[in-house]
Amino acid sequence: MSTKTLIEAFKQTEYQVAGHGPRNIGVLKEALNHIDDSVNSDIYGAGNIIDDFQEKMANFLGKESAVFFPSGTMAQQIALRIWCDEKTNNKIAYHPLSHLEIHEEDGPKLLHGLEPVLLADQTRVITLNDVMNIDVEISSLLLELPQREIGGQLPEYETLVAISNYCREKQIRLHLDGARLYEILPYYGKTAEEICQLFDSVYISFYKGIGGIAGAILAGGKDFIKEAKVWKRRQGGDLISLYPYIISADYYFDKRISKMEHYYQYAQELAASFNECHALIRTRPEQPVSNMFHVHFDLPKAEIEPILVDLYETTGVGLTGNIKEISDKECYSELSMGDVYENIPKETLQKVFKLLNEKLSKR
Amino acid sequence: MSTKTLIEAFKQTEYQVAGHGPRNIGVLKEALNHIDDSVNSDIYGAGNIIDDFQEKMANFLGKESAVFFPSGTMAQQIALRIWCDEKTNNKIAYHPLSHLEIHEEDGPKLLHGLEPVLLADQTRVITLNDVMNIDVEISSLLLELPQREIGGQLPEYETLVAISNYCREKQIRLHLDGARLYEILPYYGKTAEEICQLFDSVYISFYKGIGGIAGAILAGGKDFIKEAKVWKRRQGGDLISLYPYIISADYYFDKRISKMEHYYQYAQELAASFNECHALIRTRPEQPVSNMFHVHFDLPKAEIEPILVDLYETTGVGLTGNIKEISDKECYSELSMGDVYENIPKETLQKVFKLLNEKLSKR
Repeated sequence: MSTKTLIEAFKQTEYQVAGHGPRNIGVLKEALNHIDDSVNSDIYGAGNIIDDFQEKMANFLGKESAVFFPSGTMAQQIALRIWCDEKTNNKIAYHPLSHLEIHEEDGPKLLHGLEPVLLADQTRVITLNDVMNIDVEISSLLLELPQREIGGQLPEYETLVAISNYCREKQIRLHLDGARLYEILPYYGKTAEEICQLFDSVYISFYKGIGGIAGAILAGGKDFIKEAKVWKRRQGGDLISLYPYIISADYYFDKRISKMEHYYQYAQELAASFNECHALIRTRPEQPVSNMFHVHFDLPKAEIEPILVDLYETTGVGLTGNIKEISDKECYSELSMGDVYENIPKETLQKVFKLLNEKLSKR
Repeated sequence: MSTKTLIEAFKQTEYQVAGHGPRNIGVLKEALNHIDDSVNSDIYGAGNIIDDFQEKMANFLGKESAVFFPSGTMAQQIALRIWCDEKTNNKIAYHPLSHLEIHEEDGPKLLHGLEPVLLADQTRVITLNDVMNIDVEISSLLLELPQREIGGQLPEYETLVAISNYCREKQIRLHLDGARLYEILPYYGKTAEEICQLFDSVYISFYKGIGGIAGAILAGGKDFIKEAKVWKRRQGGDLISLYPYIISADYYFDKRISKMEHYYQYAQELAASFNECHALIRTRPEQPVSNMFHVHFDLPKAEIEPILVDLYETTGVGLTGNIKEISDKECYSELSMGDVYENIPKETLQKVFKLLNEKLSKR
């Protein structure tokens, strides 16, 4: 039995099933290769390099205006703060597994005084009923599409429309956490613009499906974005130069935006392979609705990890480098499909799942 | 008479007196050239690339620990927030022209509830007396060295020591806005460590004298930095990848840290040339104490600008691209000396000031 950790064994594999390849300096260099040395930096939010990209993204999302942020955390806190200030009401609604609730160390509350109202639960996405049953007045509702922490689940498009209509009627601002917006367009069969027109404000990210370095766009109406730019300065996001993120966001957006349909198909295919492999393995959702899904193992983390290490070493294929414990009987891994899936020979992948099945059956 | 704007004419000059050259993409490419493509990104504040640089800077500053931030705005708000929370007292003292007071759109107040007590005034730096005469209890005091908005003035080292001793006695936390810390070391004849030991927390920047892309370091005790890292996540500064800023900060730090003495001498020399040129021109301070100073013109902005445009076109030397109005009779420009001063032939520069004198005398 190998003494390597899962991440060590994973990093040494020849093929990996998910992602766009290693997050290394080469990713930035590739994007910069196409830009002449003499191109000027953006300066505190001004200059062609940032103006042009903001306009391009506003057009893509069908919004009046857009502003580039170093992080989505900052972009979303600010969006909600603006909607709260508009109503002088700090109550906002979102899913209990929203990024704002579980990954921001209470920043939304401690910095902006936001008061979250949590909707739905860990098993499902927010429904129209959840929204209609809120028993306090809220200034805004945040929907995350897809809901990452539950495997990337989505409401049906009709539900989105109904929630949007309800919010407009009740003057509740609707904000889209669209960190993975591009990735859901194939499932909905809609353009970004068609989805975004249901929302008052939209945040998108550039290092998930797009595979850039970091950075985010917040888009909405002109006045909203004007105010967001002031908050960006207040919160320390108005850097003298954001171009390393902007150039890479732009480059990888152009490179990958048309490939989202492929990533979605890869997710369907790979999830099916996991589900067919062995009864101890299942994916969530069973049929992915974007490029991402979770693989659940009905096994202790400590038991599945050495099995995977062994599998990686035998086959040269890495399935995941990171397993998260749910309980002492269950654990899971998140997979987001990207460019590298194409590189794996089909027979090799079949061999991987055959071997994994054998290993699980033998235990 | 040329119809060009000052900035247009300035950009077309062959030589420029201040700075390190244009802020263009080449600056980042030069720093990246020395790094292998396969080097891994930092990931949310972890990884060799960020750990090593944080340790290097903690050592340079003589502090236990350090954390890299995307911006100084964020780093300083967080430092002061921590000191306020420690005392459950939001009152902090700083200069009325502090960055926090005039360049952050009230972020410190609106995000962190900081309550500034303003010391000294637009003519001078903070003295021990100012600090001793504060008539409310404060949790911390911020000193900016040099005080940028008044031309980069400095208290004497003995004053710093006295203020530091007083603050320790009164349990007031002392924070250093050291955006231009390297640049003042030649005047004080001290190491960064010797200056920083007077302070509980220190912020330094990498795109001023160092000439990097963006980014900041906050340094202090272990517990303080541990808390700052949590706040960095809260405020949206814990980006998945900060390496474009870290690599360039590290590269230009190594390239320029030993040149601060030169930049200081250039400032002395150039300020003298301005002061000798014509009675309508003077610098602030008269004798620079760092690499920076302000040039004041006792003329309307609209009158000096065409004179400078003409001067730039005749001589090929640019003095400044940006003049700020003080009143309808006075304006000024900030100059920070860097690498490019070395490139200008001495006779050319003498010619520039001779011609400027003639132009001002003829008006």
